[in-house]
Amino acid sequence: MTDFSKLAIHTFTHKPWNLEDCIRHFENAGVPAMSLWRNLVDPAEGGIGLNEAVKRVKNSSLSIPALVRGGFFPGKTEDTRQEAIDLNRQYVDEAQALGADMVVLVVGAVPGMPLSEARKQVQDGIAAVADHAEQAGVQLAIEPLHPMYAGDKSCINRMQEAREICEALQHPMVGIAADVYHIWWDPEVENELRLSAEQNTLFGFHICDWRLNTRHMLRDRGLMGDGCIDVKGFMDLVESLGFQGYHEVEVFSEEYWGWDQNQYLNLILERYQALV
Amino acid sequence: MTDFSKLAIHTFTHKPWNLEDCIRHFENAGVPAMSLWRNLVDPAEGGIGLNEAVKRVKNSSLSIPALVRGGFFPGKTEDTRQEAIDLNRQYVDEAQALGADMVVLVVGAVPGMPLSEARKQVQDGIAAVADHAEQAGVQLAIEPLHPMYAGDKSCINRMQEAREICEALQHPMVGIAADVYHIWWDPEVENELRLSAEQNTLFGFHICDWRLNTRHMLRDRGLMGDGCIDVKGFMDLVESLGFQGYHEVEVFSEEYWGWDQNQYLNLILERYQALV
Repeated sequence: MTDFSKLAIHTFTHKPWNLEDCIRHFENAGVPAMSLWRNLVDPAEGGIGLNEAVKRVKNSSLSIPALVRGGFFPGKTEDTRQEAIDLNRQYVDEAQALGADMVVLVVGAVPGMPLSEARKQVQDGIAAVADHAEQAGVQLAIEPLHPMYAGDKSCINRMQEAREICEALQHPMVGIAADVYHIWWDPEVENELRLSAEQNTLFGFHICDWRLNTRHMLRDRGLMGDGCIDVKGFMDLVESLGFQGYHEVEVFSEEYWGWDQNQYLNLILERYQALV
Repeated sequence: MTDFSKLAIHTFTHKPWNLEDCIRHFENAGVPAMSLWRNLVDPAEGGIGLNEAVKRVKNSSLSIPALVRGGFFPGKTEDTRQEAIDLNRQYVDEAQALGADMVVLVVGAVPGMPLSEARKQVQDGIAAVADHAEQAGVQLAIEPLHPMYAGDKSCINRMQEAREICEALQHPMVGIAADVYHIWWDPEVENELRLSAEQNTLFGFHICDWRLNTRHMLRDRGLMGDGCIDVKGFMDLVESLGFQGYHEVEVFSEEYWGWDQNQYLNLILERYQALV
């Protein structure tokens, strides 16, 4: 029998499904956890609203490792930066209401702003949200994004820069979400995962795969086994480091979004079985 | 008057042009140097053959900073690796015949092979070619490629890994080609360029830009000014470090390849003028 107890799936992996679909199908398939993307919650993005979302999640058997996503701290003006801080506080409140363990932070970048300046602003932004997060009992997980997103999505592109912010802030609620898609190529990745585990900042762990000949920078990820990442190696490593959290399957893929989503869910389970 | 004395253009930037076109139009425009891609030389790739290419290059006024490209050293078997070494020796001979200063190395990667193992094989491959390169008076320039090419094109994705091979080999003909497209995001990039200059390994310097919302991983580079890289900052930095080589414009772009190539060349000159 496969142990699915550590499996979580991001709702965006099944983009065609709404919140109800995700909950029902994950429950039926024995998936114990789901990371929730805000587009299914926020009415402005087509979601059903926080109160409805909370009701459905609480009525389900699913754990919610993460609300995805906050961040986008750097801005050209103080007003923009304050807006981002306020929004992130709101996301923390939403996460608390939903019972999510953490908010994943895609930290942001501003074209034309030096990445080093953007990283300073990210650190200041997180610092301004951290105490609020602590009161809410919600972790803030910095997700280093692949360097190909450094232009306008994230000025933190390696575990190291995330670690440096964690070390600077020394805040119990500030840590890292490590996604193999973004970090697999980094010559320092094993060492950085080890450091993160030692420093109790390894909050999240996301799995998927890197397709050779990637056709789109945002929407062509592979499912574990489709590409060249040694996903099992990473899973074994974080386990050996004492990581207790979920293996969160996060795949953005036009190709898989075009599939029958139940068939796709079966494939996810199959691929996950091969890894545990 | 703009100083074009340091400008070089890669032939692949003007993919629709053959060797004759490139030579004629670059000469007419006052471009003093051209880095030559092997597809214009090798008959197997549609080129005119080495002897013809040598004749035309020698009859032109153009300098040839680089023959592009060798590399692809890692392989699953010893035979494959030996083949790569033999090929790279041949490219060195071609570069010598063409009067090119260096061969640019895209070092290779093998899906499923750990990147650390691939890097060892790259180091061994370069070591096996270096003395031959020295006899030919041709430099070998390791080009770190962006991490998005780590799957099957390059196991060297930061200046640091290139430097480590240079330091290990300590060979006067082994150095680095730094391309802003690949390295701009790296938090260590300024420091690594400084180290490379100090160690006399900064052989090549390539310029272009990173388009936001890049539409294709291989064929959607921007021309300087199209994107978010501080190209002028990099040019000023390498100059301040004593770099004496060319500013090589290397842009792969379906969009620009669709332009009238003379109009495109004018735009290149215009954008370059804004930087010097």
